[in-house]
Amino acid sequence: MYAVTYELIKTCKQSGARLGVLHTPHGDIETPIFMPVGTQATVKSMTPEELKEIGSQIILSNTYHLYLRPGHELVKKAGGLHEFMHWDKPILTDSGGFQVFSLGPLRKITEEGVEFRSHLDGSKHFLTPEKAMEIQNALGSDIMMAFDECAPYPATKEYVKNSLERTTRWLERCKAAHKNPEKQALFGIIQGGMYKDLREQSAKEITAIDLPGYAIGGLSVGEPKPMMYEVLEYTTPLMPADKPRYLMGVGSPDDLIEGVIRGIDMFDCVLPTRIARNGTAMTSQGKVVVRNASYAEDFTPLDPECDCYTCRNYTKAYIRHLVKTNEILGARLITTHNLHFLLKLMEQIRQAIREDRLLDFREEFFRKYGYEL
Amino acid sequence: MYAVTYELIKTCKQSGARLGVLHTPHGDIETPIFMPVGTQATVKSMTPEELKEIGSQIILSNTYHLYLRPGHELVKKAGGLHEFMHWDKPILTDSGGFQVFSLGPLRKITEEGVEFRSHLDGSKHFLTPEKAMEIQNALGSDIMMAFDECAPYPATKEYVKNSLERTTRWLERCKAAHKNPEKQALFGIIQGGMYKDLREQSAKEITAIDLPGYAIGGLSVGEPKPMMYEVLEYTTPLMPADKPRYLMGVGSPDDLIEGVIRGIDMFDCVLPTRIARNGTAMTSQGKVVVRNASYAEDFTPLDPECDCYTCRNYTKAYIRHLVKTNEILGARLITTHNLHFLLKLMEQIRQAIREDRLLDFREEFFRKYGYEL
Repeated sequence: MYAVTYELIKTCKQSGARLGVLHTPHGDIETPIFMPVGTQATVKSMTPEELKEIGSQIILSNTYHLYLRPGHELVKKAGGLHEFMHWDKPILTDSGGFQVFSLGPLRKITEEGVEFRSHLDGSKHFLTPEKAMEIQNALGSDIMMAFDECAPYPATKEYVKNSLERTTRWLERCKAAHKNPEKQALFGIIQGGMYKDLREQSAKEITAIDLPGYAIGGLSVGEPKPMMYEVLEYTTPLMPADKPRYLMGVGSPDDLIEGVIRGIDMFDCVLPTRIARNGTAMTSQGKVVVRNASYAEDFTPLDPECDCYTCRNYTKAYIRHLVKTNEILGARLITTHNLHFLLKLMEQIRQAIREDRLLDFREEFFRKYGYEL
Repeated sequence: MYAVTYELIKTCKQSGARLGVLHTPHGDIETPIFMPVGTQATVKSMTPEELKEIGSQIILSNTYHLYLRPGHELVKKAGGLHEFMHWDKPILTDSGGFQVFSLGPLRKITEEGVEFRSHLDGSKHFLTPEKAMEIQNALGSDIMMAFDECAPYPATKEYVKNSLERTTRWLERCKAAHKNPEKQALFGIIQGGMYKDLREQSAKEITAIDLPGYAIGGLSVGEPKPMMYEVLEYTTPLMPADKPRYLMGVGSPDDLIEGVIRGIDMFDCVLPTRIARNGTAMTSQGKVVVRNASYAEDFTPLDPECDCYTCRNYTKAYIRHLVKTNEILGARLITTHNLHFLLKLMEQIRQAIREDRLLDFREEFFRKYGYEL
């Protein structure tokens, strides 16, 4: 039996989007869902209790970062990542693949794995499918991601083909090395860049390996949005209907809606937390760059339609003051709001699926939102 | 009638320390009390709700900083500082005097006031007793501090004498300029450095001006602790018994106990919040520099005897990881703990006064604590 199973509750008659439940060792997750990112075993500025209060059902954490600091062995000694960071709901960990590939000149890819130098101290490391499994087994996450290569955009067809085929071979090694399949679910990752036939090849190869879930990687890497939507349109139908589908690294409001309409169940992105720390809020009126001088004497909330802690208690003028003076509370208040906004959006999406009106919801939302983040 | 009044509840039979209540426009405060510092209209990293949860009864904020950013006129438009920062309990504001004198070569003192350049952009400003009152009237704090000069240590007797006499003249100007005495209480500040006769002169001059409270300034500026205690010993008896006595800028655990024993009712200090952000905790076992490698695999709380949110839920190993990776949550967790520690210490001090055993409590505390922070 898989550690994580997907239960389809219903399909939206208007859009085909899926409403489901993901059963995990740390509880059930209603899908479609957005996963806040807690790179270094903390969703920046937030406590676990606050994350739960705004409706976080699962968070993501990073193998690469935790391997370097504090080290997966230490986390294991602490009783695993949940215990270490005081979070008792599900955790998904990425494989570190995306991070080491992003190191550019600091890394070297071979069939065996990736040699890289730490961005912290330049120390040399070697990450392989087996090592990525060892680390994630030590962390004890509910969902572990396969060690893959996320090809850049643009990339030649030859490069992408070689890369996706290596990703398939690495997935087989991941599955073989995974020590704890009854307690942790391993998800495979479909690559193939922006090439339809390569996506088809990868989807076929990856889903041929029996696993509790599959992800789509290599999107939201700089390509135009319509191109991403097109890839989703021809890729998700190739993924098994009885397994969860996770679109990696995507989290702008419009992409979440478009992704769900194309059959996606899970998303993650640093966007809401990262822009919060730069002083930008996602609101029902569009993007609010609260640092702007125009908000200096604006004594209204970030979002007049929002009922989060921040919007109930603070004005743009005050939050702007905090941001301008580099006060920690500024990052906290906007992070809380942005995550609440996206998690509430996902709840609205789930409700629209229940009511078979997700396409209508998209239209209403875009009319109101009026921009792309 | 004063905006703020002091009610003496009882005097400790063993130590002579005072237990009292300060009645303010934003509620009653049990004294002796420690006031967390919220320099820029925020106690760094904390929400008002969290401050209340750990027992904060009053906070301090800074005229100098708020005058520069966001500006007192803006705070006034927001409905005052309480409304601006979402804090409905009492606020004490300092006068900005200490901050401008600390600017060193950037400021010039005359009888009229202090000309200074902003530490932010070098812009030129002129702070006078009248201006300090105008700013604090706009902020709407419950307790306003007089614009004084805090003489450095060491300083010649002549310098200190001139300085304290100017401080008296400035206090008269503050009182005359104060627009809102029925809603905001102005406290005078006794100076005089480490010279007994000058402290006596200042205490006499300052307390001759009828005000709802008095403070002792110019201590904890680099002098040895026994010298500070000696100054307190001969100064507090010169202060009226029916008014609150505030020792400015003092907040290490030992100084709080020693100050209360010498008749002080109110304290403030950036110490607990500042050292928290550097990764140092105040605990019942002494100082814990959680950044130290020795705590890397310490899976026990910061303080085994503490029941604060941080100690109930997190280990030193995790907090060390947060501090080492510069995560905001690290600053939050230690700040929460340190303020809780000092506020609980004040509650223990009040209880010891109730039980006429503050000298015994001091002995127990020092035996356990075993160090000076």
